[in-house]
Amino acid sequence: MTAVEIPTSETGGGTQRFPADQPLRLDSGALLSPLEIAYKTYGRLNAEKSNAVLVCHALTGDQHLASTHPTTGKPGWWSRFVGPGLPLDPERHFIICTNVIGGCMGSTGPGSIDPTTGRPYGLSFPVITIADMVRAQAMLIEALGIETLFAVVGGSMGGMQVLQWAADYPEKLFSAVCIAAAARHSAQNIAFHEVGRQAIMADPDWRGGAYDLYGVKPEKGLAVARMAAHITYLSEPALQRKFGRELQRDGLSWGFDADFQVESYLRHQGASFVDRFDANSYLYITRALDYFDLAAGYGGVLAEAFRRARHVRFCVLSFSSDWLYSTAESRDIVRALNAAGCRASFAEITTDKGHDAFFLDEPALDSALRGFLSAAAERRGIA
Amino acid sequence: MTAVEIPTSETGGGTQRFPADQPLRLDSGALLSPLEIAYKTYGRLNAEKSNAVLVCHALTGDQHLASTHPTTGKPGWWSRFVGPGLPLDPERHFIICTNVIGGCMGSTGPGSIDPTTGRPYGLSFPVITIADMVRAQAMLIEALGIETLFAVVGGSMGGMQVLQWAADYPEKLFSAVCIAAAARHSAQNIAFHEVGRQAIMADPDWRGGAYDLYGVKPEKGLAVARMAAHITYLSEPALQRKFGRELQRDGLSWGFDADFQVESYLRHQGASFVDRFDANSYLYITRALDYFDLAAGYGGVLAEAFRRARHVRFCVLSFSSDWLYSTAESRDIVRALNAAGCRASFAEITTDKGHDAFFLDEPALDSALRGFLSAAAERRGIA
Repeated sequence: MTAVEIPTSETGGGTQRFPADQPLRLDSGALLSPLEIAYKTYGRLNAEKSNAVLVCHALTGDQHLASTHPTTGKPGWWSRFVGPGLPLDPERHFIICTNVIGGCMGSTGPGSIDPTTGRPYGLSFPVITIADMVRAQAMLIEALGIETLFAVVGGSMGGMQVLQWAADYPEKLFSAVCIAAAARHSAQNIAFHEVGRQAIMADPDWRGGAYDLYGVKPEKGLAVARMAAHITYLSEPALQRKFGRELQRDGLSWGFDADFQVESYLRHQGASFVDRFDANSYLYITRALDYFDLAAGYGGVLAEAFRRARHVRFCVLSFSSDWLYSTAESRDIVRALNAAGCRASFAEITTDKGHDAFFLDEPALDSALRGFLSAAAERRGIA
Repeated sequence: MTAVEIPTSETGGGTQRFPADQPLRLDSGALLSPLEIAYKTYGRLNAEKSNAVLVCHALTGDQHLASTHPTTGKPGWWSRFVGPGLPLDPERHFIICTNVIGGCMGSTGPGSIDPTTGRPYGLSFPVITIADMVRAQAMLIEALGIETLFAVVGGSMGGMQVLQWAADYPEKLFSAVCIAAAARHSAQNIAFHEVGRQAIMADPDWRGGAYDLYGVKPEKGLAVARMAAHITYLSEPALQRKFGRELQRDGLSWGFDADFQVESYLRHQGASFVDRFDANSYLYITRALDYFDLAAGYGGVLAEAFRRARHVRFCVLSFSSDWLYSTAESRDIVRALNAAGCRASFAEITTDKGHDAFFLDEPALDSALRGFLSAAAERRGIA
């Protein structure tokens, strides 16, 4: 295993490179090497190595959990929850966030150089799964010299990684927080992703995935994909409350400009997304999500996935207006955890903000996370 | 007014041409001429001219209500409800269905020849509204020599036309049936349409709307638009019931082919749609829907739109799993009808089929429609 220096500054991280003789074994049967994992850390690992928290990001997230995003210059995607006195506190926790494999922020993905050709992988990158992402994270955690994570935490696709951690590496977990996720992708989830993929692939600048070689990007297709997905992140009532039928200008344009504020908002979401995200990564990560069905590896019985995780303290949280991964799906997870004999606390947070409540100012989420992690820290002796 | 021969055969219709001195006055202020309205009829107008039923079609529908579609060769979109012994019975009713203006099946639309240039309108076609569609229908009804419609019936966008008829031409209505519709487009409705429009406009073969001149069609963009919209026509439970995570083949492809049946189904929906529908018509008709807000013309008070319709018998129907135009929106319509002093019967039909239940085998819809129209026919003296 490659040695890595534990960051001693408040904010650390870098890129962990695994050489060719340490490939990532993928669910597809392929081997991915060399493997690189880009990550950020906040806080210091304590002497007992008992205070490490892994935060797993969602579909379009990255390792810039709580530090300025290098492309957008915006605060990290979960800055709201990470900091002194916040639920994830660098004074107490050693917080790690990795870019998932398949991503486009430094971890090995379709934009990385394929060592066999010397050119970007493009569509020759192997299809990856949520379990593959987690396997890569486990390699990093081991490289960092950490045997047990105090907590693994994530929302949306991050929550799916949390469930996969509980299934595949329960011995490495003390607690687990799964927010606004599901144990499998539904037909509707797959349908929305397929629309996005078709939009990308319909863009002539996609060039069969080889756009890097031509110096172009399928920006229009990727923007449409983002727009379609973005609708699923917001609840209908929140859209109505935020935008309703409010116009951009006085009166209608009687044309196809953005007349309504919601149109302008969506166009902005699409346009700004293409500046920070890669189209092929979008294809691969949505595919990983669609392939996700945790119970499938356990004869269709979700509880079986959690049999070895009885010692793990689970917290499952959902949002009442989330129609992407609904409360019913979180309840299915809790039911399976209970059936497996795991300790699980569950809360449905009442909000009209939909799936995206996970990123937003939602005091009930803050207090649920804080309460669960504080109680777990006491048990862990790191309070 | 141009004379038109009333079809005496069981199935009739044709194209009504209004000359340049009889333009359609549009809400935008523009005049559309010459105006053509393509329509089909079923049954015969009785001597009293009291048995005419106008059926208004939805976004991608057309005049081929109950006869074979000329492009697809499939039965008309509402054949299930039109025929001897069915709720709409050519033995008793004179049933009329027109292609909306802006459409692509013979009525004047963006694919028609602009008389000022001799070339297809493309984006120089004026933006139209639901009220414009209804105004054109009223011109046809008058040309057919019909003073009062026994009923105006429609679902989805057809239901919006029904509401607009009640607001603009209540004196011409005896009864009105509004199925799975809303009195205005919500922010979420607009958002989904904007995704579709952006998908079409992102297709380089759209050519700024002038694709007809280049002998190409923005098929990929239009297919993506249809796929995104199609998801909104189905409920999540119906998608799960029909497709779940069922695969196309044994095992996953580990690639980007359609692995899941729901992907294949959506791709088929997109691919078959482009054979029968025009991209610019899709832009114009979705715009008309987004502009629809019936109360806006009445100081924001929907009831005021129905003040002159107290003599009209209304039937409002919704589907419990319709999340495009939900039961709550039908209830808003009923509340406004009640506030205006109109007679309105309302039923929410329990089904998991979502918005598309309107087209499907839904016995409760059949019996609600049959019951309402029979009672109205008795009152009208045409039973």
